[in-house]
Amino acid sequence: MRDSNREWYFAERPEGEPTMDSFALREREPPEPRFGELLVRVRYLSVDPYMRGRMRDSASYAEPWAVGDPLQGGVVGEVVESESDAYEAGDLVTGRGTWADYTVLDADDVAPVDADVAGLPAYLGVLGMPGRTAYFGLLDVAEPRPGDTVVVSGAAGAVGSTVGQIAGLNGCRVVGFAGSDEKTAWLTDDLGFDAAINYKATDDYGAALDDAAPGGVGVYFDNVGGPITDAVFPKLNVDARVAVCGQIAHYNDETVPTGPRKLPQLIAPRARVEGLLVSDYATRFGTATEQLQSWVVSGEIQNRETVVDGLENAPDAFLGLFSGDNIGKQVVRVSA
Amino acid sequence: MRDSNREWYFAERPEGEPTMDSFALREREPPEPRFGELLVRVRYLSVDPYMRGRMRDSASYAEPWAVGDPLQGGVVGEVVESESDAYEAGDLVTGRGTWADYTVLDADDVAPVDADVAGLPAYLGVLGMPGRTAYFGLLDVAEPRPGDTVVVSGAAGAVGSTVGQIAGLNGCRVVGFAGSDEKTAWLTDDLGFDAAINYKATDDYGAALDDAAPGGVGVYFDNVGGPITDAVFPKLNVDARVAVCGQIAHYNDETVPTGPRKLPQLIAPRARVEGLLVSDYATRFGTATEQLQSWVVSGEIQNRETVVDGLENAPDAFLGLFSGDNIGKQVVRVSA
Repeated sequence: MRDSNREWYFAERPEGEPTMDSFALREREPPEPRFGELLVRVRYLSVDPYMRGRMRDSASYAEPWAVGDPLQGGVVGEVVESESDAYEAGDLVTGRGTWADYTVLDADDVAPVDADVAGLPAYLGVLGMPGRTAYFGLLDVAEPRPGDTVVVSGAAGAVGSTVGQIAGLNGCRVVGFAGSDEKTAWLTDDLGFDAAINYKATDDYGAALDDAAPGGVGVYFDNVGGPITDAVFPKLNVDARVAVCGQIAHYNDETVPTGPRKLPQLIAPRARVEGLLVSDYATRFGTATEQLQSWVVSGEIQNRETVVDGLENAPDAFLGLFSGDNIGKQVVRVSA
Repeated sequence: MRDSNREWYFAERPEGEPTMDSFALREREPPEPRFGELLVRVRYLSVDPYMRGRMRDSASYAEPWAVGDPLQGGVVGEVVESESDAYEAGDLVTGRGTWADYTVLDADDVAPVDADVAGLPAYLGVLGMPGRTAYFGLLDVAEPRPGDTVVVSGAAGAVGSTVGQIAGLNGCRVVGFAGSDEKTAWLTDDLGFDAAINYKATDDYGAALDDAAPGGVGVYFDNVGGPITDAVFPKLNVDARVAVCGQIAHYNDETVPTGPRKLPQLIAPRARVEGLLVSDYATRFGTATEQLQSWVVSGEIQNRETVVDGLENAPDAFLGLFSGDNIGKQVVRVSA
């Protein structure tokens, strides 16, 4: 049953934009589950922008990877050997594992996966960490009110597409920034965004916002940073809230990036800007997942994943995040 | 009784750093109070950094001055003629008037001044708008908790010196940035700041902060912006709060200033940054003034004013704000 076990490990710290040099594949004996653990055959693994932070040598919110460490992230897989009463062979689970054919998970840290609710990749997206990030980041940090215009950057990504749909369910006008006409069409035609701006098709984001958000911006959910964010800040309404979820435009910067100063722009609107980490909401993950599942089942929230096939292509899938290759959640299919 | 009445008016919009060219003095008939109004002989008038915003042609939180308008601001003075039952000639009042020997105030918009509580200039400082700004900005926006390290920029100014003292009363460690050894000595020796940094005596604000705030920064109350603020952000602790009260370093900028991007620095600490305007708290001004008066009377909060003599020197007093000439509140004595 356990055939070859391949595992990606962290081979070299990148400087600036990461390349394949940071990744290396090795053969390893399949790991042995200990008491309370599960041996899981990985079906899908998740690649996420925040992983770039783990490639740095400096402490951040996510523990840095040491060179030689197996790469880690969210996985969905099938239990092939259980040392826990909670699960048995054949069960589908999701948790935090390694970029490998087989991974060992603590039964206490996994959640069951119900393939009738949604396809397996959804458990790494709308029903996983990105969905919970969208849920708490929007509802707890940005606090949208009916009638607010909510602007989302990275709107066609896993987090952004969920944020926009939750905002729409809350009676907001929703405007998304995304990087292709295919993405903006998905946002407006399928997900119900009121407007979407292809930031690769215009240089004048301010004018695009004047069209898309003529009443100004009540909430800005930022996954990106950089020039898009620079264009949004001068449009903030009184009492606007900005949730700083991600800054993918800056993850590969080796020095502190510079740009237009934003603090002077906060005084007149008395705007609030707040960073967020989904892990702060761990005690309420159950509530969020239940709500997100119900929205997915009812069709009120749609999910989409971009699937790259084969464990051997996991680094490519990760690197593609920085060029916006994905629509919705980017996952890697490891086994069928 | 009403002798000559001089009045400063706005002569020319400045570009960049304002000069005397923006100000002109004229003789005017003393104004006539109408029903419900008071004719007030001005004793002291206030010059404040926010007035630079009123010199711009663009709408901001404070209505722009038109060229030819009398300059306006807080005053303390003596009623010389009353068309209101609430006050009589000889009463001391404070309100928003003009830079003039005589000004007319609406009796509904003034507050009585009690010279036994504090000297008249204090009613333009700790017991006036700057004191209320400190009170609400610190307590409502920055929400200090006992044990927090609170860093204040512009700490020797009217707002900053009050912020630091209120933070001390709330059990915080208080660190101030100010622009001279005389100022920093006042902060630590007289006002009870735990540490003060003369930002004109060092270039390495980060190292100075490591010494003065070795446990990091829980609250940053920003009156200044620029390089001081740039040094504070990387020191923000988890759940830090930043109150953006003023950005005097940028008030004379004619284009949007650039600097290190701060949004990427907010995610790991989940920091909150919020702009504030004291006018939002108008319904609670009474509570704040009562509390501030009680602190002043008990000596728990000390106030200090820098007094420039003579209405003719009001523009100089204003321009001096941008070079940090004042310790505590800058006022102009108009009449004895």
